Amino acid sequence: MSVTNVKAYGAPAADADLKQLNIDRREPTTKDVEIDILYCGVCHSDLHTARNDWGGSMYPAVPGHEIVGRVTRVGSEVSKFKVGDLAAVGCMVDSCGECPSCKQDLEQYCVPGFTGTYNGKDTHLGGHTYGGYSEKVVVDEHFVLKVPENLDLAGTAPLLCAGITTWSPLRHWNVGPGSKVAVVGLGGLGHMAIKLANALGANVTLFSRTPGKTQDALDLGAHEVVISTDAQQMKNVAGKFDVIIDTVPYVHDLNPYVGTLAINGTLVVVGYLGGLEPLLNTVPMILGRKAVAGSVIGGIAETQEMLDFCGKHNITSEIEVIKMQEINEAYERMIKSDVRYRFVIDMASLKA
Amino acid sequence: MSVTNVKAYGAPAADADLKQLNIDRREPTTKDVEIDILYCGVCHSDLHTARNDWGGSMYPAVPGHEIVGRVTRVGSEVSKFKVGDLAAVGCMVDSCGECPSCKQDLEQYCVPGFTGTYNGKDTHLGGHTYGGYSEKVVVDEHFVLKVPENLDLAGTAPLLCAGITTWSPLRHWNVGPGSKVAVVGLGGLGHMAIKLANALGANVTLFSRTPGKTQDALDLGAHEVVISTDAQQMKNVAGKFDVIIDTVPYVHDLNPYVGTLAINGTLVVVGYLGGLEPLLNTVPMILGRKAVAGSVIGGIAETQEMLDFCGKHNITSEIEVIKMQEINEAYERMIKSDVRYRFVIDMASLKA
Repeated sequence: MSVTNVKAYGAPAADADLKQLNIDRREPTTKDVEIDILYCGVCHSDLHTARNDWGGSMYPAVPGHEIVGRVTRVGSEVSKFKVGDLAAVGCMVDSCGECPSCKQDLEQYCVPGFTGTYNGKDTHLGGHTYGGYSEKVVVDEHFVLKVPENLDLAGTAPLLCAGITTWSPLRHWNVGPGSKVAVVGLGGLGHMAIKLANALGANVTLFSRTPGKTQDALDLGAHEVVISTDAQQMKNVAGKFDVIIDTVPYVHDLNPYVGTLAINGTLVVVGYLGGLEPLLNTVPMILGRKAVAGSVIGGIAETQEMLDFCGKHNITSEIEVIKMQEINEAYERMIKSDVRYRFVIDMASLKA
Repeated sequence: MSVTNVKAYGAPAADADLKQLNIDRREPTTKDVEIDILYCGVCHSDLHTARNDWGGSMYPAVPGHEIVGRVTRVGSEVSKFKVGDLAAVGCMVDSCGECPSCKQDLEQYCVPGFTGTYNGKDTHLGGHTYGGYSEKVVVDEHFVLKVPENLDLAGTAPLLCAGITTWSPLRHWNVGPGSKVAVVGLGGLGHMAIKLANALGANVTLFSRTPGKTQDALDLGAHEVVISTDAQQMKNVAGKFDVIIDTVPYVHDLNPYVGTLAINGTLVVVGYLGGLEPLLNTVPMILGRKAVAGSVIGGIAETQEMLDFCGKHNITSEIEVIKMQEINEAYERMIKSDVRYRFVIDMASLKA
């Protein structure tokens, strides 16, 4: 198969820094879109994959699934895009298309499993998929999103993961005008959850462990900040929230937040993968018909809906733009939560 | 206040057997219905309250919240009932009537808390409320249910707790034709869940630890029985169920059942109050947008809906009728799960 060799940035091994390397991109098939990558957001998953924190990483690992760029070539059957269009790619580049989830536009829950933008199985070239830390990417048009022309392109990139990961549960659990929404954690995901819930018309509260982020949260669109370590403040919001989006990426006690759910309320975990410790207590769940649920990214149609919504409301992510060569330093800062609120790589730095 | 002294059966203390005693019932107020109790179901909560297993029991403890009888007197403003009508009372005899839950017919989630049929605060006579192990009960008509004339009265009693506790989540989570429902545990609640889910048109599976209850489950309306200790059988139903009603009253591992939920599925805990151990794992919840929720009994309107549905489908509980004097032995048998599937007291035995 004919390929194009392009520059990329990746980790040669779990214990190695990311460095420049070259990867192959396939020639666009009849249904493919080739995209010249302009910006790529930096997600915590990038770091965890590069370092094999979750196991199963394949090397070289070229991360990046918050991709924004311009179309450079299209296959003969592509109908949604033409050369020169803005385009975006998120966490998925393929799925089976035939399972009940795919047929309901829920590719993120594809039963055999979707193909990740990186570290997935590359069914075209063999080996594994390479992400957006590269000059170009070639993707089936079904998994390519249209980008509203009015949005800041760099700030748009994180919408493809941080944005859709919070948008999907807000929509699935019917957040709208009058809804009372709380967000746990103010990082890449949390700050998008605040912006999106606010724009959907909800009353938005941020739970934070310390008062340091209060002004930021209010500026982003939160109506209130509750310090979760303050028992009186927590008591004041007991039974209040219809939906809580919990973005915290490490193990933490959900029980105090369950106490702030209203009757029929749902706490949606989007950040932490693992066992719920301390033990989740069923008593308040039973006595208030409350639920604890999980959610991962969102479907392609839903991602387009989110991008269109962001275009209409002029919503983008709060970002710090870096050069590709600064990625290793950026990872170190992310581990210390030293970013407000998302790093985005200006891919011109790789091409230079 | 004028009162009527009636015979009852109750525990004088946590460590004492139940015995015959006398209690006062208030004169019916303008909105009250006085009921001559014909049958009273025996719920596990009765036993736990009598023995103070949960703390907070008040003595003498007169249990019983699965009450069926005939109206003997009505207050001047009572419109739903007349003397001679069949009537039923479940787990609640009062609620605030003004909170958001009460205004949505969700008295079971009354924010200040509903008044339990027993061991609640008696706002009329002072002290605490006494349940259905007695000759008569006087209840505000809002909390009195109409009983379809065609139903077996003894078998109807358990509908007031075991029935509504399983009906409410089946309805709240939209079970109907085409739904795939599983029930965990085949006891008083579980056997009602099978009957009700089947009558709602769902495909019903029972999870059981051993094959001993397979034929019973099929007879009750289950379409399949899955032995939860058989890894292959569990694997065969991975990702299958829209709703799981978990009626098991002791701590147990929910994770294997979460694995059998379909995308968007919900496991509803109705039997176990406490911490979820082993740790509930968020990974399958996030990767399948699955939820774990709780639910308690049901609202009054919903209870009436359930009774009407049972009347239409001729559904009652599978029971063993006992005399009031046999209650202490019945409790011992319940602890050993030696009942298929609910004890019901023939209250004529108390009056004799």
